[in-house]
Amino acid sequence: MEQLSPTPRTTGTRESERAVADRRRLLALLDDALIAHLGAVVQRDGVTHPVVLPVAFAVDVEGPDEGGTLYLHGSTGAGWLRSALETDVCVTVTELDGLVAARSGFNHSMNYRSAVVIGRARLVEDADERGHALDLIVDHMIPGRSATLRAPTRKELAATAVLAVPLREASMKERAGAPEDEPEDVATGVWAGHIPLRRIAGPPVTAPDTDREVPDDVRSRAAALG
Amino acid sequence: MEQLSPTPRTTGTRESERAVADRRRLLALLDDALIAHLGAVVQRDGVTHPVVLPVAFAVDVEGPDEGGTLYLHGSTGAGWLRSALETDVCVTVTELDGLVAARSGFNHSMNYRSAVVIGRARLVEDADERGHALDLIVDHMIPGRSATLRAPTRKELAATAVLAVPLREASMKERAGAPEDEPEDVATGVWAGHIPLRRIAGPPVTAPDTDREVPDDVRSRAAALG
Repeated sequence: MEQLSPTPRTTGTRESERAVADRRRLLALLDDALIAHLGAVVQRDGVTHPVVLPVAFAVDVEGPDEGGTLYLHGSTGAGWLRSALETDVCVTVTELDGLVAARSGFNHSMNYRSAVVIGRARLVEDADERGHALDLIVDHMIPGRSATLRAPTRKELAATAVLAVPLREASMKERAGAPEDEPEDVATGVWAGHIPLRRIAGPPVTAPDTDREVPDDVRSRAAALG
Repeated sequence: MEQLSPTPRTTGTRESERAVADRRRLLALLDDALIAHLGAVVQRDGVTHPVVLPVAFAVDVEGPDEGGTLYLHGSTGAGWLRSALETDVCVTVTELDGLVAARSGFNHSMNYRSAVVIGRARLVEDADERGHALDLIVDHMIPGRSATLRAPTRKELAATAVLAVPLREASMKERAGAPEDEPEDVATGVWAGHIPLRRIAGPPVTAPDTDREVPDDVRSRAAALG
């Protein structure tokens, strides 16, 4: 199994028993998850602060960047875009799998899978790579959908920035299962356990301005998430 | 209805039609959501980069900070903690409500609710406020749970940092419903619509080292999320 390349920036300094240096599990998480949280550093009026925004994304494991490529897109007019190109970015993808009720507040926790990718974002300028990345982002939402759509117009392409972040510097943490209590707390007889959580899809909702049947790709996606 | 106090940092520069300056909806989202993504700015070896981590949180609308208080906690040994106290932080809370399949890739979108809070985190040092914040974080996961648990030990308290972020500088964006397509795309007859998504809980799973019945607070929480 391939290994991630953790660095001091992506290696947790605590709870290293939860650090799972396992590229296959990282890619499986990135495949499961539907949104990422993009962090950038903003400099405004001499003050530095982070900004964190939810974004759509897609991964090309065969992408041109070392370790594969994570693609993001946004409006060329978005304020965060310039910031995201001026320093490294952090892209974090988290799936919440459960609430962990221990016998002490201290040992309460969550079951989750979380990937943290840090790197310098590259503004994708090659037309073929841009088109490929935008198709991947649509197909990450609904596999097969991009092939059923018209090509983007010049105006749409001019309004869209595509960023590529290398998957080289990435780490993953996860927690699963029962709480871990102190032996003296187990003896108190307080109930402990966890509440599993998962995301489900409802049936596709057809837009009011069409009378077409739900296509197979959309039906399959809803069923797979269902 | 109270209004948020948006600033240039929390006011979206794009898609302002989606910006919902509505405090009540912001607080409802913070009540619904179970995790936040905390962004901090890290300075390491002369390089500045953001870090974004999933965290548990709770809100005290009557908290001591302007606009109310958002509480976070972490290990005092965590590397991100010092960074989070050195510059402003960004706390982003997102609930994904659906996948929006338009007739063009460009108009594909997500249905979501997302709150962005930017501010200077305060390290909570008052013992009463620390205890209150830690109880709120447990009760945000499972309402009523903290009252059934022993008090934290001195050692646990010494290992736990509690951060307070004012809810003053906060914004919310949301999207719901059908895609918005160009008129010429509607005419093409491609199906459009959305796939609703939601989080559900399974039945509580009792830890292997207890034979107690699932308590009412845990059962109610699972049912409410169910």
